Amino acid sequence: MNTKNHCTDEREVILTGDRATGPLHLGHYVGSLKQRVALQETHDQTILVADMQGLTDNAHNPKKVSSNILNVVADYLAVGIDPSKTTICLQSQLPALAELTMYYSNLVSISRLERNPTVKNEIQNKGFERSIPAGFLTYPISQAADITGFNASLIPVGDDQLPMLEQTNEIVRKINSLAGLTVLHECRPLLSNAPRLPSTDGKNKMSKTMGNTINLGSTEKEIKTAVNSMYTDPNHLRVEDPGKIEGNVVFTYLDAFHPDENYVNQLKEHYRRGGLGDGQTKKVLEECLQDLLRPIRERRADYLNDKAQLIDILKKGSQISRSTTEKVLFDIKGVFGLNIY
Amino acid sequence: MNTKNHCTDEREVILTGDRATGPLHLGHYVGSLKQRVALQETHDQTILVADMQGLTDNAHNPKKVSSNILNVVADYLAVGIDPSKTTICLQSQLPALAELTMYYSNLVSISRLERNPTVKNEIQNKGFERSIPAGFLTYPISQAADITGFNASLIPVGDDQLPMLEQTNEIVRKINSLAGLTVLHECRPLLSNAPRLPSTDGKNKMSKTMGNTINLGSTEKEIKTAVNSMYTDPNHLRVEDPGKIEGNVVFTYLDAFHPDENYVNQLKEHYRRGGLGDGQTKKVLEECLQDLLRPIRERRADYLNDKAQLIDILKKGSQISRSTTEKVLFDIKGVFGLNIY
Repeated sequence: MNTKNHCTDEREVILTGDRATGPLHLGHYVGSLKQRVALQETHDQTILVADMQGLTDNAHNPKKVSSNILNVVADYLAVGIDPSKTTICLQSQLPALAELTMYYSNLVSISRLERNPTVKNEIQNKGFERSIPAGFLTYPISQAADITGFNASLIPVGDDQLPMLEQTNEIVRKINSLAGLTVLHECRPLLSNAPRLPSTDGKNKMSKTMGNTINLGSTEKEIKTAVNSMYTDPNHLRVEDPGKIEGNVVFTYLDAFHPDENYVNQLKEHYRRGGLGDGQTKKVLEECLQDLLRPIRERRADYLNDKAQLIDILKKGSQISRSTTEKVLFDIKGVFGLNIY
Repeated sequence: MNTKNHCTDEREVILTGDRATGPLHLGHYVGSLKQRVALQETHDQTILVADMQGLTDNAHNPKKVSSNILNVVADYLAVGIDPSKTTICLQSQLPALAELTMYYSNLVSISRLERNPTVKNEIQNKGFERSIPAGFLTYPISQAADITGFNASLIPVGDDQLPMLEQTNEIVRKINSLAGLTVLHECRPLLSNAPRLPSTDGKNKMSKTMGNTINLGSTEKEIKTAVNSMYTDPNHLRVEDPGKIEGNVVFTYLDAFHPDENYVNQLKEHYRRGGLGDGQTKKVLEECLQDLLRPIRERRADYLNDKAQLIDILKKGSQISRSTTEKVLFDIKGVFGLNIY
């Protein structure tokens, strides 16, 4: 049973989540998962596994979404997200979110959606141009449905996602103005202070297909291979040469994951003045990542061996979320005068 | 209880409906309502009161929709649509339709929607241009959800609505191709053989705000006024002058509503050769419309005096429809691999 703390009235409501389009990796770990493990102690936190949003640009390859739903839940549990403290739910199990999306769609113009900088970028990256699926162009409306459907006031995001929250708050204001009273509350971002983790090849964007990520479920060998192939300082040819820290992915990862900051600083000085080989820094990093990921990988595998338990967690979380989101839907239908019975 | 005939397996499924944005008028009567009264004897007919679709261009004036839902149901019953033979349901009570819309949205591009001739026309008529609400541009997807959600194979439409059915069938083919089997069936139009009834002022489009319609609930006096102000032959100045039948709204209405075709033909001949005044033809038409609408108006008023009964009919029809549409949703979620529990 979900024994979620019922003194949540006083806890601020956080909604966060992931598109279920691949297993989670170290970028997710430092960018959001660690924060969620902390936030579940102080906030009323819901994590939405966004399978429907995942389909907005994967409808012709739906397995990419469906096959990753339980992987993502296992990732959550493996890093310490506790379903008795955090509600974990599945977007496709919450019809009220689809209904809210329909109502909000009447309040947002196509040109407003096309001006959204985040969507604009994504359209360009994916090469959609005018063949963009309607569901993809309109997904900021669906996100507004997610956020308001949970009455969430605090949304952990990267700064590239701020236009999404602005879109949500515009809808909130339109609904309140239509209603002539405060039906919905505006949300605000919780910006992570963790810098974005680079991919192992030093390029900006992590991508499963590029093989430049280290997934939470990576094997010992995969971790070793990934660390060994990491981008360092291309001009650091001989051990005795001075090396550069900036852009050196090994050091960025050491900063992000090594527990001993002083030790990392010593390594940096040594590397800068020369005499410290990439093989050595990689060995330190590998050991640290192996230590971090070993228990996560083991717990993850255990969870994935008991799919019934994962499904049960999603089921219970979605049941709780169904009731929350349906209450909001009732209010919104009220704004449009549709609660005739 | 809905005692709908249960031998429906062999009956073809018809979906029809109206946007609840105003009371129904004589144009609806000849264009669709009369046909529905006949079809309920031979087909498995569902009528969807499309309140959500009504909001796609009325979100800022939702009362226009909410205040007309029960009026429209009363109109149906008053003309003889029988809830024990026809399922009457309310779109906003069927979450599966919103969910289907979300899934289908990922299979239709924005440019495809913009090419839809029906939507193109409506955008122009309403002066939306780029400020078109997302919900309005995408409403053909929502209509596809309605049609497929009921497994409807026969859709009564005017020929201006054919592009909507083409859009629906495109989605059907995409779903079946994704599934690798026939999950949905294509629909086909049932074109009405009744010519489109002109407005009383002889302009093409009936419009409540123009005051050029005769509603099913019109009072005796309203009918009289409407018939007296009808557009006839502007060159038929003196009774003894020959008059024109073509474009003469009085004769178009006589053709549509007078029970005695021979008598109408005699009137036409007389009018053509001269000696028959507009006052006389209007008197014949008025009497015929008063006879037609008197019992409809009375039944309509009785139904509107018992709103609980109207709500009960919608509730029962929507309950039946909920189960139908949820079965289809289950199949579509299956295509995307989302029935994980």
